[in-house]
Amino acid sequence: MKEGIIASPGIAIAKALVYEKVVVEVSQAKHEDSAVEIKKFHLALKQSQEQLEKIQIKAVSELGEEDGAIFAAHAMILEDPEFVESVEAEINDHKFCAAYAVKIVTHRFFLIFDEMDDPYFSARAADIKDVGTRVLHNILGVVLADLSKLSENVIIIADDLTPSDTAQMDKKKVKGFATNIGSRTSHTAIMARSLEIPAVLGLTDITETVSTGDMVIVDGLKGIVTINPDASQIKSAEEELLAYQAHLKELEGLKDLDAITLDGHKVELVGNIGEPGDVIGVLKNGGVGVGLYRTEFLYMNSETMPGEDKQLAAYRSVLEAFPDGPVIIRTLDIGGDKKLPYLPMDDELNPFLGLRAIRLCFKEVALFKIQLRAILRASVYGHAHIMFPMVSSVTEVRQAKVILKECMKELEESGIPYDKDVKVGVMIEIPSAAITADIIAKEVDFFSIGTNDLCQYTMAVDRMNQEVSYLYDPFNPAILRLVKQVIQASNNAPGLFTGMCGEMSGDPIAAIILLGLGLDEFSMSAIAIPQIKKIIRSVRYEDARVIANEALNLETGEAVVDHVLESMKKLKINI
Amino acid sequence: MKEGIIASPGIAIAKALVYEKVVVEVSQAKHEDSAVEIKKFHLALKQSQEQLEKIQIKAVSELGEEDGAIFAAHAMILEDPEFVESVEAEINDHKFCAAYAVKIVTHRFFLIFDEMDDPYFSARAADIKDVGTRVLHNILGVVLADLSKLSENVIIIADDLTPSDTAQMDKKKVKGFATNIGSRTSHTAIMARSLEIPAVLGLTDITETVSTGDMVIVDGLKGIVTINPDASQIKSAEEELLAYQAHLKELEGLKDLDAITLDGHKVELVGNIGEPGDVIGVLKNGGVGVGLYRTEFLYMNSETMPGEDKQLAAYRSVLEAFPDGPVIIRTLDIGGDKKLPYLPMDDELNPFLGLRAIRLCFKEVALFKIQLRAILRASVYGHAHIMFPMVSSVTEVRQAKVILKECMKELEESGIPYDKDVKVGVMIEIPSAAITADIIAKEVDFFSIGTNDLCQYTMAVDRMNQEVSYLYDPFNPAILRLVKQVIQASNNAPGLFTGMCGEMSGDPIAAIILLGLGLDEFSMSAIAIPQIKKIIRSVRYEDARVIANEALNLETGEAVVDHVLESMKKLKINI
Repeated sequence: MKEGIIASPGIAIAKALVYEKVVVEVSQAKHEDSAVEIKKFHLALKQSQEQLEKIQIKAVSELGEEDGAIFAAHAMILEDPEFVESVEAEINDHKFCAAYAVKIVTHRFFLIFDEMDDPYFSARAADIKDVGTRVLHNILGVVLADLSKLSENVIIIADDLTPSDTAQMDKKKVKGFATNIGSRTSHTAIMARSLEIPAVLGLTDITETVSTGDMVIVDGLKGIVTINPDASQIKSAEEELLAYQAHLKELEGLKDLDAITLDGHKVELVGNIGEPGDVIGVLKNGGVGVGLYRTEFLYMNSETMPGEDKQLAAYRSVLEAFPDGPVIIRTLDIGGDKKLPYLPMDDELNPFLGLRAIRLCFKEVALFKIQLRAILRASVYGHAHIMFPMVSSVTEVRQAKVILKECMKELEESGIPYDKDVKVGVMIEIPSAAITADIIAKEVDFFSIGTNDLCQYTMAVDRMNQEVSYLYDPFNPAILRLVKQVIQASNNAPGLFTGMCGEMSGDPIAAIILLGLGLDEFSMSAIAIPQIKKIIRSVRYEDARVIANEALNLETGEAVVDHVLESMKKLKINI
Repeated sequence: MKEGIIASPGIAIAKALVYEKVVVEVSQAKHEDSAVEIKKFHLALKQSQEQLEKIQIKAVSELGEEDGAIFAAHAMILEDPEFVESVEAEINDHKFCAAYAVKIVTHRFFLIFDEMDDPYFSARAADIKDVGTRVLHNILGVVLADLSKLSENVIIIADDLTPSDTAQMDKKKVKGFATNIGSRTSHTAIMARSLEIPAVLGLTDITETVSTGDMVIVDGLKGIVTINPDASQIKSAEEELLAYQAHLKELEGLKDLDAITLDGHKVELVGNIGEPGDVIGVLKNGGVGVGLYRTEFLYMNSETMPGEDKQLAAYRSVLEAFPDGPVIIRTLDIGGDKKLPYLPMDDELNPFLGLRAIRLCFKEVALFKIQLRAILRASVYGHAHIMFPMVSSVTEVRQAKVILKECMKELEESGIPYDKDVKVGVMIEIPSAAITADIIAKEVDFFSIGTNDLCQYTMAVDRMNQEVSYLYDPFNPAILRLVKQVIQASNNAPGLFTGMCGEMSGDPIAAIILLGLGLDEFSMSAIAIPQIKKIIRSVRYEDARVIANEALNLETGEAVVDHVLESMKKLKINI
């Protein structure tokens, strides 16, 4: 029995298929004839293009348009002049062989995206690695094992899985994943959840512990893999699987129901998205709108600054997906650990405390105005909400509103329609904004609390820094008190509402407290919505209020979690 | 008339002496014979030693032991095996000439200290540069102008001044400084204040605008330099000088008086120090104790970990300087931008949100315990207060106290005496600590608010980052509200007191608010004490309370400053 990271829920019982990949070591070989190596490279590009087309067709038919689009993106990388020219330059200028040139250029591109702390860009980094490996294999003539033709049900045991691996798989026969590496936000985890395949990742050496043909149980609920289980272990796994299926059925039944407490207090459950395509998941899981549209992806995914029309099209498609619900569009939050290839930024000693988000937009007003105009133009297609990130004082809110007014005036002068009642709000993610929420409330229509950053700044902890991440604790009473302060300021201001779009809002234990503190809107990954709806529908608002108020005076985050769990037990509420 | 940085107060009227230094350009020259270059280097070391001995004798007799010690430190750099061996290695291994080897090794050492954001280490960096330049000049046979023999009163006009320059000066004849570069914390500024010579720095091109013999007025109160003034300008400068001298006289008269308001509310004014020698300044300016002893200097200034006995001697000497007053010793605050040469630390993406201060001490418990034992052993010599920096939650306070208890037990078992009632407190410099001050209050004897970091984290601004430093605002209502919250928590806990050791406490405008919020102890640079005492003695506590409470509800930092200035005007209080 081995314990790993819970990456995709469910239980699978099947025989193991150990999917071993060829590890290609390419060393820094020099060549004699650049023309020959360039030719090899272009031949491999062509082969890769053809393979990707086939995979894309299979992916679209089996996984749908959205997942198929990954392979169109892969094909685009192959056509990217920057990629192609960089490889050619390595071959010509440094006399490297084609394989080595592809290897180093791929790695360089990979690093740009991998260094960003964001699931989207990590996925993009995985895409680049996947494409690079494909080209490399084609140059070297390496042929991989074929997962598309399987004769029986299997659990895939691998070091890691690439988008190409998962796309080619025979989904009817693949029942689970167990891998050596990976995290909750790695490609394999995202794919497993999207395919609803149970997965346990980060098992370190599962490929060495399991042999093809071994019987395996993958318990994606507990994060446990059992190798060659006995009869009683299989029996209890089968029982747990049945219970899990019943639970899924129950969650599915909630899809069109309100997020309302037993005593009739209603809140709004909405989704966090990064791309227009993500609305499908939000709708499927019963989200009534978008609480956070991270527009960075639109910029990061582009080689030049996305123009007003391109942005308009993206915003419009999201707004039209929710004719009745709110769509909160966050203006560009770049800087910190996220950079744009076409916008040079200085290195900073402490980028999290530096020139990012609204601060950068004030410096790059032209860029900011293009986005604001695009959102305004899109606002006629739905319920657009404009949200400014990283606001630290009321002065910045006023400054942003002045620029927004300018954009409105420009549109008016050009006779372009926009929603004159478009809602304007701010992220509350800097402690000073939370502490002066009563002052900022006079300037906005809504708040959205970003707990990830709020917690980082409030506790002075970079949660990506392994040496100190143990101190990062959204349940610390300091964070709960700030959340309460923001909600109170919102309640004291007529017409204002407060949402939350940090990870905390998708956490079942936190949800009870947040409900009790009076949060109006919970925004989270689409997949978390049914679970949170179930929790909210099984508690009384009055009870949640008591639990929350008691939590505010506890001394530590641990005590808060214990208190909520105990209260839920007493009230017979199951997560 | 040129405007620069106010570096040292006062007004000087005299003829200019433009002190031009030889700019030595050493390029990467190779040599033939390493033995010859090594010999040149050692000869220059010896010459430099002899020069420094002479300067030290002059400095001790004219400036006192403390300032003379700088040159003993310079001499130590020359004897530092790491320095000497590094230069030799460059000569032997890379065949560089002696001058180039000295240049690059000096620069490497300079950078280590210069990159740290701390006045002490910046001064250390200046020392290294100064010594390196001296050795370089001796290798090349460059002789500098002599400032020790002046025939008339002068104002020194220079690009920048080194410790050697200022030490050699004929202090009776030098009436003012005006330089191209420098800041309030640069060596020239510190020296000017210590010598009570008016100085305006950062004038960019004063060496090109002024010629030797020009009449010059240096107004260190307004930060203005007037070149070749007319008769009326000289007359008004003379009047201002008289008024300033009267003001100094008044401040001097306050030295032995209490810091007490007109209506009898008494507070404590104490000094921030970095080295035992700094107590002289605190005593001279009427500070009744030490509110912040930054022990980092003891570690940074050492080539190996300072042992228990070495630390004991330093702490004891400070405690004995204040038989009646408190001495708050802050445990090691290293990490962030400060590193120790003998303690390897990983580079961090956001060092201000990383492994620093108490967090590092929990990781390096042996190092932590040596310091705690040294403070405990010193505690019998005065009123020692132990203060833990960078606490984010009550859990860390408890953890630190467990380690402190272990140290006490060890001392008891060894029969070594210590003050069993030694006071234990924490820096409040992380927002979560301020917000949960009521919880932390149960574990400590005192709080000391560190406004520099508190403001950085609360507003998510690295104030060293020029792109965003405009957002750093200690007068922002969010900061004032946190300060109030901490003081209230302290007032509700019997026996607790709250001080402040950030820059804010030495600011005259902030002082009124802090007084009104109920701050018990103000700790600042020694030089700021008389001014703050004057302010406190000229206001009624009741009035300060009203001013502070009104400030809490203003919308911006600017409005707060305006409000205080206006209130002071109404109450006829002069800064």
